[in-house]
Amino acid sequence: MSRRDWLAMEEWLPDDVDSLLDLAASIKRGEVDGGLEKRVLAMVFMDPSLRTRASMETAMFLHGGHALCLEPGKGSWAMETELDVVMDGTTVEHIIEAARVLSRYADALAVRSFPKGTDWAVEREDRTIRHFAEFATVPVINLESSRRHPCQGLADAMTLRERLGETAGKRFVLQWAWHPKALPTAVPASAAIAAAHLGMEVVIARPQGYDLDPDDYTAVEALATARGGSMRVTDDLEGAIEGAHAVYPKSWGALGHFGQPEAERALREGKRDWRLTEERMATTADGKGFAMHCLPVRRNVEIDGAVLDGPQSAVIDQAENRLHVQRALLLELIGTSG
Amino acid sequence: MSRRDWLAMEEWLPDDVDSLLDLAASIKRGEVDGGLEKRVLAMVFMDPSLRTRASMETAMFLHGGHALCLEPGKGSWAMETELDVVMDGTTVEHIIEAARVLSRYADALAVRSFPKGTDWAVEREDRTIRHFAEFATVPVINLESSRRHPCQGLADAMTLRERLGETAGKRFVLQWAWHPKALPTAVPASAAIAAAHLGMEVVIARPQGYDLDPDDYTAVEALATARGGSMRVTDDLEGAIEGAHAVYPKSWGALGHFGQPEAERALREGKRDWRLTEERMATTADGKGFAMHCLPVRRNVEIDGAVLDGPQSAVIDQAENRLHVQRALLLELIGTSG
Amino acid sequence: MSRRDWLAMEEWLPDDVDSLLDLAASIKRGEVDGGLEKRVLAMVFMDPSLRTRASMETAMFLHGGHALCLEPGKGSWAMETELDVVMDGTTVEHIIEAARVLSRYADALAVRSFPKGTDWAVEREDRTIRHFAEFATVPVINLESSRRHPCQGLADAMTLRERLGETAGKRFVLQWAWHPKALPTAVPASAAIAAAHLGMEVVIARPQGYDLDPDDYTAVEALATARGGSMRVTDDLEGAIEGAHAVYPKSWGALGHFGQPEAERALREGKRDWRLTEERMATTADGKGFAMHCLPVRRNVEIDGAVLDGPQSAVIDQAENRLHVQRALLLELIGTSG
Repeated sequence: MSRRDWLAMEEWLPDDVDSLLDLAASIKRGEVDGGLEKRVLAMVFMDPSLRTRASMETAMFLHGGHALCLEPGKGSWAMETELDVVMDGTTVEHIIEAARVLSRYADALAVRSFPKGTDWAVEREDRTIRHFAEFATVPVINLESSRRHPCQGLADAMTLRERLGETAGKRFVLQWAWHPKALPTAVPASAAIAAAHLGMEVVIARPQGYDLDPDDYTAVEALATARGGSMRVTDDLEGAIEGAHAVYPKSWGALGHFGQPEAERALREGKRDWRLTEERMATTADGKGFAMHCLPVRRNVEIDGAVLDGPQSAVIDQAENRLHVQRALLLELIGTSG
Repeated sequence: MSRRDWLAMEEWLPDDVDSLLDLAASIKRGEVDGGLEKRVLAMVFMDPSLRTRASMETAMFLHGGHALCLEPGKGSWAMETELDVVMDGTTVEHIIEAARVLSRYADALAVRSFPKGTDWAVEREDRTIRHFAEFATVPVINLESSRRHPCQGLADAMTLRERLGETAGKRFVLQWAWHPKALPTAVPASAAIAAAHLGMEVVIARPQGYDLDPDDYTAVEALATARGGSMRVTDDLEGAIEGAHAVYPKSWGALGHFGQPEAERALREGKRDWRLTEERMATTADGKGFAMHCLPVRRNVEIDGAVLDGPQSAVIDQAENRLHVQRALLLELIGTSG
Repeated sequence: MSRRDWLAMEEWLPDDVDSLLDLAASIKRGEVDGGLEKRVLAMVFMDPSLRTRASMETAMFLHGGHALCLEPGKGSWAMETELDVVMDGTTVEHIIEAARVLSRYADALAVRSFPKGTDWAVEREDRTIRHFAEFATVPVINLESSRRHPCQGLADAMTLRERLGETAGKRFVLQWAWHPKALPTAVPASAAIAAAHLGMEVVIARPQGYDLDPDDYTAVEALATARGGSMRVTDDLEGAIEGAHAVYPKSWGALGHFGQPEAERALREGKRDWRLTEERMATTADGKGFAMHCLPVRRNVEIDGAVLDGPQSAVIDQAENRLHVQRALLLELIGTSG
């Protein structure tokens, strides 16, 4: 089989994603042992992590493998991500050499790289992860890039399947939430894609000015439609949540003001009410819809503590599922029986 | 058996502590193999570490397990430790979610969190480690909190037993030492508790103004008395060391000036003679008492280099014993035969 | 057998170095399994690393062992490296205790410590790695000190043997290269020693003022001569490269201006042409000489991107060989069959 990367869920065949989800469920039931003996995963974290690092490292260990954790600019060299550059500035290692060399030590690479620039037209090309994939000679796993967080999306899909059983026709609300900072769109885009993959009624509730990238909408809508679901964008938050089966509050910055923190902050002002409260959770389907979040979550800012600590929260199960889906993904990409 | 945490030695039954020490001695003799296969320990370091990290990671590995090492604010997210807070400031991950999520990935959590604040009335509640224990669903191990460093205390106890055989009635001197900074009291309190556990004559030699927390004195005295020993506090350093079997110099800050560095420094001034010298070691029991320290130690400031490099130093054995007691602790808390 | 350290290639018997290279080749062919079960390597990184950390950690894992990665001043305590000092300044842990304690946890120590000072007369004594070796009680491995990077040198030698077969009489050019910063001399000195070990015609091409330490020249010449080769120093870059079998461009600072960045920069100015280009590679032996580098490399500054990406580059194989030679070294120093 040719080498496969895991850069974005919608780039895999839906049947293959379903196989991963089936394998993850089997793993969670304790049915799968071994399979990564002598396998090495090299993780490159250009940004911080708790769940991702802990769950990937645990995933490798539980099946007999080992994960390396490299942090360019901290423990390792500051990395150049642009091609064709004369490197006489501050970066000392090019992503080309890093990808090629790590491919000689490890059986797969995993990369986290958040958007850093000031120009969305550049960031939306997702160059760092794409360049890693271009120059690596082993599978590359996206641990959250400028555009996608497909490991999170896979855990989101697993959690939705686990809680809902039949997902088709059920309503998934991606709810924009206020936050003190303008955050990336990788997680909300990936969550919507995960729900689309499950054929759900995907409702994106956000204030004016907070649309995801048009390409994200296109991807969500195409996948949802192909899988028997739908996509809708609205600024009617109450209407979206009323009768919803799952609500996923998540903050992200206004792409129209990307790299312009003052303008973005002005637009965000006055929207602290875009928060997931107990009152809103009470209006979900049968009053029993559940709340999702990728974590880390700002308590009482994105979601009220009472919701997080209450019976309608799925966030800890969702975080646990990161471990199971990643075990499945690693076994699929670099497993010894592959 | 219900879940057990290792937060403070005095919170365990003395018999159970003795069992740990027996197991550690057996491990040191090379009699114990395996027992932590597929077990994961998640370590959360909010402060730096050499011995603790290296010995815990080695302990897990030697028995077939794996230790994760997370550093909030460096490689992972800055962590909120206060409950009931609206998280619109600088912290991005709450300890509640961190404890709950890590409990899903790991079989035990281990946490290091030094006192940071300016108010001892707050710090003495030891909230960070207590909150971790409250929200975790797996055993929690204290790797040094504001109040206690029980893994160090256990290694101290092992070293005392190893060197003295019968410990009852022998004299243990906890000696305050000068140091350029006001250090925490967790280590000295835990060392005194360890000696108390062994039924020793515990003498705390410190200058006026450098008492440990009253609760620490109560804990030491209660445990020492129950185990056939005693506790005494003095400012007569020479008298304390003369005839002592073990001397444990350690610096700590004046709790009465906690969070007031200028006032504390003024009180500390002129006390550089509170140092463990060869001359003082010569006055110990038969001239053969031994010197202990938790490390890192400031050479020629807390202890003279000649003592550290000489035959009366137990500090390297003591550091080695961290490994053995922690292997015992981990086998006890999360071992596969448990 | 008495304990052995790996501090500098020229301190080992040439036959023993050849045995390591033979073992590394066997490992690369997949002929060696296991041998480091329950073995622990403690790595102390006082400076950043990507290849070294990743390859050492992978080397230990692949044979059943485990590598600890400690970073003094980051995750662990700032370390004092001078002896006889009253530690009332900023360092909190002495290298003496660190070396002694880590020797109790690990089967070998590995240390990276670049030159930091302003006085080459001091730095050239290579005190940090030598002190570690003095106070450790287990083998010490140099992961790049002020003077030597012998793991890199070993990989360089493996790469030269692999590509050239018979190395005797073939020409190895160590080429000084321009770089925006004054870099250490450990890598170029170790590369020249590696080529000398192979009995090659070692040519060091550098501008006036950029000589390596006189002791380095003595070591290279003595070893080259003993092994049937030679050493020559020149400022004729074109003449050196013409007909060469291997070209190793590498930047280093002028030792005559060590610790004087302004003076050094002035001397370096105007030398950006000391770069390895396609044109120069075309003049090598049969137009098929190969380019080496330790990495990280500044693209289009030390070596043109076209050379790095072209068929004459050996740099990725060279980086891969770090893994194989280190596996051999670890098996030799702390292997279970030793």
